[in-house]
This record gives sequence, structure tokens and C-alpha cells, in this order.
Amino acid sequence: MALSEFELIARYFSHAGAPREDVALGVGDDCALLRPPAGQLLALTTDTMVDGVHFPHATRPGDLGHKALAVNLSDLAAMGAEPAWVTLALTLPAADPAWLEAFAGGFAALAREHGVALVGGDTTRGPLSVTVQAHGFVPPGQALTRGGARPGDLVYVTGTLGDAGLALLALRGEIRLPGPDLAAVRERLDRPRPRVGAGLALRGIASACIDISDGLAADLGHILEASGAGATLHLERLPVSATLAARLAAAGGWSLPLSGGDDYELCFTVPAARQGEAERALAAAGCPADRVGVIEAAPGLRCVTPEGDSVDAGRGGWQHFGG
Amino acid sequence: MALSEFELIARYFSHAGAPREDVALGVGDDCALLRPPAGQLLALTTDTMVDGVHFPHATRPGDLGHKALAVNLSDLAAMGAEPAWVTLALTLPAADPAWLEAFAGGFAALAREHGVALVGGDTTRGPLSVTVQAHGFVPPGQALTRGGARPGDLVYVTGTLGDAGLALLALRGEIRLPGPDLAAVRERLDRPRPRVGAGLALRGIASACIDISDGLAADLGHILEASGAGATLHLERLPVSATLAARLAAAGGWSLPLSGGDDYELCFTVPAARQGEAERALAAAGCPADRVGVIEAAPGLRCVTPEGDSVDAGRGGWQHFGG
Repeated sequence: MALSEFELIARYFSHAGAPREDVALGVGDDCALLRPPAGQLLALTTDTMVDGVHFPHATRPGDLGHKALAVNLSDLAAMGAEPAWVTLALTLPAADPAWLEAFAGGFAALAREHGVALVGGDTTRGPLSVTVQAHGFVPPGQALTRGGARPGDLVYVTGTLGDAGLALLALRGEIRLPGPDLAAVRERLDRPRPRVGAGLALRGIASACIDISDGLAADLGHILEASGAGATLHLERLPVSATLAARLAAAGGWSLPLSGGDDYELCFTVPAARQGEAERALAAAGCPADRVGVIEAAPGLRCVTPEGDSVDAGRGGWQHFGG
Repeated sequence: MALSEFELIARYFSHAGAPREDVALGVGDDCALLRPPAGQLLALTTDTMVDGVHFPHATRPGDLGHKALAVNLSDLAAMGAEPAWVTLALTLPAADPAWLEAFAGGFAALAREHGVALVGGDTTRGPLSVTVQAHGFVPPGQALTRGGARPGDLVYVTGTLGDAGLALLALRGEIRLPGPDLAAVRERLDRPRPRVGAGLALRGIASACIDISDGLAADLGHILEASGAGATLHLERLPVSATLAARLAAAGGWSLPLSGGDDYELCFTVPAARQGEAERALAAAGCPADRVGVIEAAPGLRCVTPEGDSVDAGRGGWQHFGG
């Protein structure tokens, strides 16, 4: 690389986050120095995205900058944490100024939107990959863990499911979409919107929460495992966009909303007695959410089809639901 | 990969750190939840190591696990911070159980030695690289930043310099070493010892500090730049091991101790009035340190040779010192 890592970071990332008063010392020394707020827990998450594994090689650098941050903010959202500080470890085959400027721009726009400061990082030469680590705050006792779902709790998801998976099918040539529809679902794949406001609204209300990165069936499965419970989902209640609804059969039936990854919506559970409170809190946060099922004592994930059949959705059983 | 990332992390890294009471929730949910101590700053650093760039492809996995953590603890040491929590983002071409067990073992041994908890991570498929992020604590006003060196301050380095660089020369076949000497310098390259105790001992005493990852000339250069100062080094004072001293000319003269990377010693500055205090604090911490130069007002890094000549060491000038 022509530029040293120090020069790279300084040049492209010096304004890639929001200024914050709790940053005593930012990028440029051996460590950043931060002032955690008194009386709150520090929530911490990290996610790596590897070229060709977590994103198509043709992903635009601005989208990649956005998404690498978004998937980490989504983990904070799933915990009910308020985002604060992030670090960025970027490995690049070469120091391409146009690429770096676009990547930093996508990263910075989302960081500023959420008031997040970029406080450190490392830029290295190697095969393209991005590791972001995100820090947030949550009051003790209010974090949304995976293990609190109890039989009778209602299962919700935010937004719509399956559009990112539909975009991948279209990019692979497995399905054909009109231009505007393709643009809409690519936006879902390339620029996911972390549900930070919804996560904050659900503090102290949801009994369990997770973000949907690997598909609803897999991620709800993590809640069920951590909570020692099972669930039944009603497939016809799964929220899908008009774009996906119009071609659900051609796109593999319920596979995409059940298992299409990269949605970055939240799946959460709420005690039945707090249903109204949860729905009002999400409405106030401007976040759509649908009740899609119920937690049960019997282990496993069961799906009720629109025809009224119940099918075991464990171990990929949903894959046989194709239209 | 046959195993999901969740299973991998759970299996190999569930005991890869020290237990700590300030970890409210560790690996296994969307975020870890941590309790930062009241009244301290949080020090934060991250470093990526890429196969073939930051370590030779033949590096043993146990050594890599050690080193990926060590280089991050070294950054905390350079800040005077007490290590507490780390995360590990590991990208692997395949899930090889023997490799993972050895890597986790090297990582865990160093983590436990420093009382560090592994609180989160991500395991992904892709070209081998390791990103560790480390968190530590330092009281306000006691952090060892790079910008506090003032003319007249004395320049010190801990331990010895150049052995890791000598090991690289030997591994590349550019120099031949007897077996025991090769083993000794490879230990320096593969298993660097972060100077955590020395960093803590220098709190409130050193005026500036950095860890030596890119070589003394480059890293002292960062102190000089951040402090708006220059320095003179006395080459014959640079501490080298008996192994390197015996073949300094064959190994390129002063190039290795001045610019051989991967030493992970500390370079720090001390006001002359506090020389005795600094030396006693380091002796109490069991850390050898040598006074190698002095900070001056005139910008630039000058090196005085054993013959008494002064040579400008800026911009790679030291490279001409070869024996």
C-alpha cells in the first residue's frame, strides 16, 4: 500500500462518525479513551463481513460501509441498547481512494444518523473483509436477552421478511424482477435499516428479542433454545412486501420469509398481558410489527400453513414449503 | 463449514478467558453486557492480523492465538490501561478442530494470565485473519498518550529490540542461526509478552508512551509527531539480546533494533526530574528498561553512532546504517 494505515484512517475516517462528549480521546493513539455513563451496562457486539461470503463481490463500497455498521447496530437494537461507539477493522487488497471514500461515506451517513462515534480502527492489507465492533448502553434489568420467552408469550416480527433473500435470488438470475422492484429489494439487501428505535421502545416490555440475520426460523430457534421453549408460527401472518407477495410461489413459497437471511428485522416475544403496551410502544417509535405466533412449552418450531396443516419447521423442514 | 459459528464459538472458546464479576452476560446473546467500573476511563483498541501479511503462513495456531491477543494487550499496556475484556473475530478457510483447539489454547493461556474475559466474537468462513478488540480501564488523567513528550524528557525502551526481526530474517533464510538461538528469537516473534505491568507502573510518571510494533524509529516518530518535538537516540544504548549482539553486523547493523517490527516493547518518555521514580517503578514491576535518548525541540529523529556521528534517521535514513 502506498499509504500507511495511519494515513488511511486519518484521511478517510476522521469524520466518519458523530462527535460525542463521552469520547475523551478518539482515533490516533494506542487506544481510544471513553467515558461510560454511570449506572448503565455496556452492550458489546462484533460482526465480520467477508467478500463473497457475507456480501456479493459486486457490492458497491458505499453499501458495504453502510451494511457493515448496520448489522452491528442491529445487534445493539436486538439487545435494547442505545448505540454509542464503534471501531472499524478494515482489510483491503489495495488502498483505492475512490473505494475508500465511498465506503467511508456509507459508513459515516449511518453512524451520524444514530449519533455513533468512530473511536478506533485498524486498516490492513489482505483479502477484503470488514469487522465492526459496536458499543451501546442499556440500564440494568432492561436488556432484551434471548432467554426470557415463556409459554403463552406472543411472537412478533418488525417490518417485512424475505426481501433481501428475493434480491439475492434476482442477482443470481434465479428469478426475474422488474427494475423498480429489483431496486426496492436490493435496497433491503444492501442498506438494511437497523431497528434501533424499536429495540429501545421494547425495553422492559419484550420478554425476549433477537435480530433476524439468518432467517426467522433459525433466529427464533435461538430464542426457543435459550428460553427452553417451543413455538407455533402462522405462515399467513408472516409480513411480506407487496413485491414478494406478488411472486411468493415463484420465489419458493414460505422459504424466503422463514429463512431468507439478511432481513435485520427484530423478532421478539411479549407476555400476552402486555400486548397492548408493546404495540403502542412500537407504534410510537414508528415501527410496524406483526404478531406471527405464540410461544409454547413443547420444544420445536411448528408452522401452521394457510390450509391449516401443522408442519415441523425444525431442521430445515420449512424448505419443503416451496410453492 | 460443518459447524455453525455458534457451535464453533461455544465449543472452543467457552473457556478461553478468565471469569470476571464485571461480566453480566458473556458470549451467546446478541451482545455481551458488561459493568464498567465507576470513575475510570474505558480504553479500547483493535488490531487485525492477516495470514501472510502480519504473520508467516507457517505460524503455529497456538502461537497465532497468543499473538493476536498479545498485540492488543500491548496497546492497552502502552496506554497504561488494566486489561479486562476482549472480543475475537476469527475468519477461517475451514473449521479444523485441531487448529481451533490449538488456537484457542494459545489465546486462553495469555487471557487467563492477564485476567481477561473473552466476552464476544464472530467466527466466519474466509481467508485466515484474526481481529481482536481489547478493553481496559485507566483512571482519568493517568493515561499514557503519545502527545506529552517535552524537550529534555528522557527516552526509554523496555526489554530488548530486534529479536523478532532477526527471527524473520532467519525464517526467510537470510541469516543462519544455531538451533537454540533460533528458538529464542522465534519465541520473541511468535509469543510476544505484552508489557502490561510496565504500563501500569508508568501511570502518572511517563510523559508519553507507545508500544513498538513497527520498529523503534517509526513508533518513536509517532510520539514526536504527536508531541511536536524531535529526539536524539544513542545507537550504542539500544538494548539488544546476546543473540543479536553477537551478529549485529551480519544482521544489518542497527536496522533491526531501530526498525525491526514485532518487538512489542514499550517506548516511553520521562521528565528528567522523575528519572529515579520511573526507574524504581519499572524495577518494582520486574521490567528491564534502558535510557536510549532525549527529547529535543528541533523536529526530526537523529541517531548518534558509536563513532559519534549524528545521522538523520527520518524517512528511513536508519536503513543506511547497515553493518
